Amino acid sequence: MEYTTEKALEILERTPYVLKTLLTGLSDVWVYSNEGEETWSPFDVVGHLIHGEKTDWIERINIILGDNIDKRFEPFDRFAQFESSKGKTLIQLLDMFTELRIKNLEYFRALNVSDEQLGLKGLHPELGEVTLKQLLATWVTHDLAHIAQIARTMAKQYKGEVGPWKAYISILNQ
Amino acid sequence: MEYTTEKALEILERTPYVLKTLLTGLSDVWVYSNEGEETWSPFDVVGHLIHGEKTDWIERINIILGDNIDKRFEPFDRFAQFESSKGKTLIQLLDMFTELRIKNLEYFRALNVSDEQLGLKGLHPELGEVTLKQLLATWVTHDLAHIAQIARTMAKQYKGEVGPWKAYISILNQ
Repeated sequence: MEYTTEKALEILERTPYVLKTLLTGLSDVWVYSNEGEETWSPFDVVGHLIHGEKTDWIERINIILGDNIDKRFEPFDRFAQFESSKGKTLIQLLDMFTELRIKNLEYFRALNVSDEQLGLKGLHPELGEVTLKQLLATWVTHDLAHIAQIARTMAKQYKGEVGPWKAYISILNQ
Repeated sequence: MEYTTEKALEILERTPYVLKTLLTGLSDVWVYSNEGEETWSPFDVVGHLIHGEKTDWIERINIILGDNIDKRFEPFDRFAQFESSKGKTLIQLLDMFTELRIKNLEYFRALNVSDEQLGLKGLHPELGEVTLKQLLATWVTHDLAHIAQIARTMAKQYKGEVGPWKAYISILNQ
């Protein structure tokens, strides 16, 4: 499937509502449990998505499309949410993510990115040259991957409760 | 995390709405693409969940709690949806799943299953003896695993579009 902005937006604009439907009103044990040491809870993931909206996607789009000759991206802090989510409730984080995403998509839509611009490049600190199209496809894929992660993390909370069915549910064994 | 009916219901009752939020209004290519040969599209998964509501969970609960001495479960047909979903739209399937789930949870709630009953057993055709508690925990886990599968399947549609970021998104490589 080839990237198109139209189909990318279908995913990007619904992610906040998918997360709200999946997580709002759940008991704490579903929201704050992770997959084990150095893994993230659904709460942590939402904080991570917020940090992406604040510092990553739009910022990098602007670097690629901007006039500055230096096309290097700032490294993305994958652990920022452990500080920034402190003292906040899940509902606050979900609302914050929703607002940021709406604002960012408004900004992105207004850019009206052309097919030609999709081929423009930026410089990722670790991955090297990347195109705007790859960045935008990654924004979409990153959303979906984190929805999958949240559902998997929640599923694993019953890993010890499903008995022999564990053999049939492959993500419990990942 | 130990199974409790209260926390299980939190998941079971929201799954139809999570799927509706995730899938309603998407372009066909997101809905009908799978992960490759002998894998399922989001459309296939919703059909599979419907078949579970119709023939599996409540049926097996009834076998375990019922008076019949024979506690053997019928084998579950994992491929029934390829016939039964034919000619139906995604919206029809999502509505059908929602109705069945609401009806099944109403029935399940009315059973008012006691802690003692959770230990009662049925006989799975392949897995052998299983308890009611394990069956109910599996119902929940099965929902979450299929939500994760749908999100992963959608993410993979952009596998060829994310360029070097593929290295960072582990579920693309599963």
